[in-house]
Amino acid sequence: MPIVSDDELNRRRQDILVGARRCFAQHGYEGATVRLLEEATGKSRGAIFHHFGDKESLFLALAREDAARQAETVANNGLVEVMRDMLTHPERHDWLATRLEITSMLRTDPSFRARWKDQQQILDDAVRARLQTNREEGRMRDDVDIETLVVYLETFMDGFISRLARGDQAGLEEVLSIVEQTIRARR
Amino acid sequence: MPIVSDDELNRRRQDILVGARRCFAQHGYEGATVRLLEEATGKSRGAIFHHFGDKESLFLALAREDAARQAETVANNGLVEVMRDMLTHPERHDWLATRLEITSMLRTDPSFRARWKDQQQILDDAVRARLQTNREEGRMRDDVDIETLVVYLETFMDGFISRLARGDQAGLEEVLSIVEQTIRARR
Repeated sequence: MPIVSDDELNRRRQDILVGARRCFAQHGYEGATVRLLEEATGKSRGAIFHHFGDKESLFLALAREDAARQAETVANNGLVEVMRDMLTHPERHDWLATRLEITSMLRTDPSFRARWKDQQQILDDAVRARLQTNREEGRMRDDVDIETLVVYLETFMDGFISRLARGDQAGLEEVLSIVEQTIRARR
Repeated sequence: MPIVSDDELNRRRQDILVGARRCFAQHGYEGATVRLLEEATGKSRGAIFHHFGDKESLFLALAREDAARQAETVANNGLVEVMRDMLTHPERHDWLATRLEITSMLRTDPSFRARWKDQQQILDDAVRARLQTNREEGRMRDDVDIETLVVYLETFMDGFISRLARGDQAGLEEVLSIVEQTIRARR
């Protein structure tokens, strides 16, 4: 049996993620059957599930990739910038719709819900840290606690994702300025 | 053949709507098969489709009921009050999740999209009228145009619905005050 290097394993893992993201975006969470995932990734089901265990874990790995990328943007430029990025990359909207499709699962499946929250933690933490720094430096309103502002921003982003995912981006650019202004310190 | 009065026809129509709402809430849009709709409404498929044409039209009739009820609340108390109502009626959250499930359809099916927008018009108009009156009476900020505030409020409500539908209502009450304050006139 040939020995496979760590680099090679990572490369295969990455190939699966890229193909699976396209597959979920195109067919939705339910619609992305194992056969379609095989086709999209160019890997056998054996290889896919060797790396990710099951479809749910594969999906959550993609959600974690998003959260990690978004957390980086948040650290540098804040959550509103994450939304601006979404506006300028319409090709990502197909994938965003998949996030909405799993809403019922989040409510009805406590184990999935716990795993999802775990994946999102990295984003929550980044938003919280950013707001904290901004407050310390006097750039943020201080009449509302940080936790409420985290919920405000993330709830707005959920709505933003809903709109983009249904192809309804009229006025979203302008609305981002209101959101940005709302959390800033008053003159 | 017995003659059926208009009252009786309306009553049957209403029975179908009530049962169908429960059925969509429980099984989702895709999951609500014709057989399950028959069970939930206590009516034959013949009767159901006599009144509503097809499953899509039945679903849109329910969305229109929501929009009409919400438009009434908006006229009296504004869109934030519609969200407060959602918070105090957790039993409606199952149904709200169905709205998210149809997101992909809204993007990929132009005819469904046009019909959905048509149903939502009554709510958009009510929000716009309310903001207009408030502005004329000096209760609203005037540095942003009404159309942008409509998108701001409705986008936030989309996010609010996402959160409720996944059973995540932590902090939402507090956040509503921020939204309310954001559209008000500055002191």
